[in-house]
Amino acid sequence: MPELRKDPILGRWIIISTERGKRPTDFIIAPPPTGGGFCPLCPGNETTTPPEVLSYGRPQLADNRPGWSLRVVPNKYPALVIEGSLDKEGEGIYDRMNGIGAHEVIIESPDHNAAFTYLSPDRMIQVFWAFRDRIIDLSRDPRFRYVMVFKNFGSGAGASLEHSHSQLIALPILPRMIVSELEGSKSYYGYKDRCIFCDIIRQEIRKDIRIVCQTEHFIAIAPYAPRSPFETWILPREHSSSYIEMDDRQLESLTAIFSELMRRLDSCIPGVPYNFVLHTAPLRSEPLNYFHWHFEIMPKLTSIAGFEWGSGFYINPVPPEDAAKFLKEAKI
Amino acid sequence: MPELRKDPILGRWIIISTERGKRPTDFIIAPPPTGGGFCPLCPGNETTTPPEVLSYGRPQLADNRPGWSLRVVPNKYPALVIEGSLDKEGEGIYDRMNGIGAHEVIIESPDHNAAFTYLSPDRMIQVFWAFRDRIIDLSRDPRFRYVMVFKNFGSGAGASLEHSHSQLIALPILPRMIVSELEGSKSYYGYKDRCIFCDIIRQEIRKDIRIVCQTEHFIAIAPYAPRSPFETWILPREHSSSYIEMDDRQLESLTAIFSELMRRLDSCIPGVPYNFVLHTAPLRSEPLNYFHWHFEIMPKLTSIAGFEWGSGFYINPVPPEDAAKFLKEAKI
Repeated sequence: MPELRKDPILGRWIIISTERGKRPTDFIIAPPPTGGGFCPLCPGNETTTPPEVLSYGRPQLADNRPGWSLRVVPNKYPALVIEGSLDKEGEGIYDRMNGIGAHEVIIESPDHNAAFTYLSPDRMIQVFWAFRDRIIDLSRDPRFRYVMVFKNFGSGAGASLEHSHSQLIALPILPRMIVSELEGSKSYYGYKDRCIFCDIIRQEIRKDIRIVCQTEHFIAIAPYAPRSPFETWILPREHSSSYIEMDDRQLESLTAIFSELMRRLDSCIPGVPYNFVLHTAPLRSEPLNYFHWHFEIMPKLTSIAGFEWGSGFYINPVPPEDAAKFLKEAKI
Repeated sequence: MPELRKDPILGRWIIISTERGKRPTDFIIAPPPTGGGFCPLCPGNETTTPPEVLSYGRPQLADNRPGWSLRVVPNKYPALVIEGSLDKEGEGIYDRMNGIGAHEVIIESPDHNAAFTYLSPDRMIQVFWAFRDRIIDLSRDPRFRYVMVFKNFGSGAGASLEHSHSQLIALPILPRMIVSELEGSKSYYGYKDRCIFCDIIRQEIRKDIRIVCQTEHFIAIAPYAPRSPFETWILPREHSSSYIEMDDRQLESLTAIFSELMRRLDSCIPGVPYNFVLHTAPLRSEPLNYFHWHFEIMPKLTSIAGFEWGSGFYINPVPPEDAAKFLKEAKI
């Protein structure tokens, strides 16, 4: 059983996962990236994954056969497990609970060689539907407080499978990153009576030096204080605290901006590994006037990323104004 | 001029460095690790670095000639610059200041092939002297509030030069990591009237399942909620909030435990890349009863590290009890 443990000084929760590597020798040689051989995410291999929890394109859960256009399955090597109770307890000054949660893989296309960035709009929108559907479904489990949706692309960004996929983890606690954002934005709201993200959007539109692109409902900006070169955020232009509040029309607009942004990024830095993470309100939260959901997209330019791993401090050699300009002018 | 910018939501400061790579094409191909060719840190090449600010083993600052056993020089490509004023200002809702600071390289040995882990005690102690001497010297500059001392070993951990070295950055702001630790430990002290780190040490000694090794004045433990496999902390056994309070005898004891720990780690996972970071009280701070200085050592096992880069959430496949056991039993 995996375990959730809290750092008593920082309040940071981490997962001790017992399903993965264990002995020191497991770390001596990095495993070669999967590729060439067998792909458990390809059509025809449905029975090699745990049974699907969602699919589009053919009758859902239809014996886990081919014919799907998108498929969501539990991770075969989950960081957290779905069965069991939390059993929160103290160990002296420490706090722990059982590693209860869900860990799912969103298989974004049946085509092994498809890249998320170049999915057609009707394919890409399915990915965003799936995020919504899965968050709504998982929010029914009272043990969970947050669903973290993210994507790792490229081995430099931590992807261990080639076949295009994203992931989600349903957590019984709020990740520290979200706690900090909620606290920061709440404190701003208390002071100004305005959402800080709405204020950021207003200022960015007025200045127009860090905007990459816009669609009817969304804006993509290089944030003022980016952690890494070409970091970009996608935010809804109208205030909304939760991803799942989006209707289908807004999802279309999100697809359009995501697709454009990713193609611009790939045009600037071909094949760049990246991560994106959805930041949204906690599960079952009422609409929050101070918090604004968004995606954060972080290219992983490892040739220069070492510094901050060491120091815990971010040093970014590319001003966001330059990054926005490069992205805006990229040929796509 | 580099710039310090603050994320308005999280209060996180980042450095926009203008001395480093800039155009998208700079990121397309990772630069090959330096090696084989010319080494600017080797004896005989003293004039290729900026003039030294400290040296041991020969008369200090003696025309930057060979003969030294350790040498500290400003970084040739500094993330922050020493000349200028802070010019703090707002830009609408954003805050910035000039990137004033110091960025120095501690050249740990004249021997190009020496590894920190295997330095003899009389060589290694010089590194810890140098940290102390430089922090004390830099604390005289009222513009600086913190000196972050860290080491990146191995290209997997962000080192760009082979020759054994560590680094320091003097900052006009407190890094978020230190702010969070100060807040967390202060809040605990307010509640319990005890230092949380002292409580951790007491509990670890009583339990004895996460201790790696001890010397007269220090203890090395695998923390209860480690971010990465084999993460280890070295703490003074007696309460002290600042690294620079150490006398020479304590520095000897620190050298002994650091050397033992690093050799144990290298025996478990030969050649493992790692970072270590010194966590100490802000400059010119009075002694703090709630904060306890320490080193955090983080092996960089990239084959499995991808997950948390993406998610902002740490998943660790090695329980610290196992890591401590492996390290304790390692043959050195």
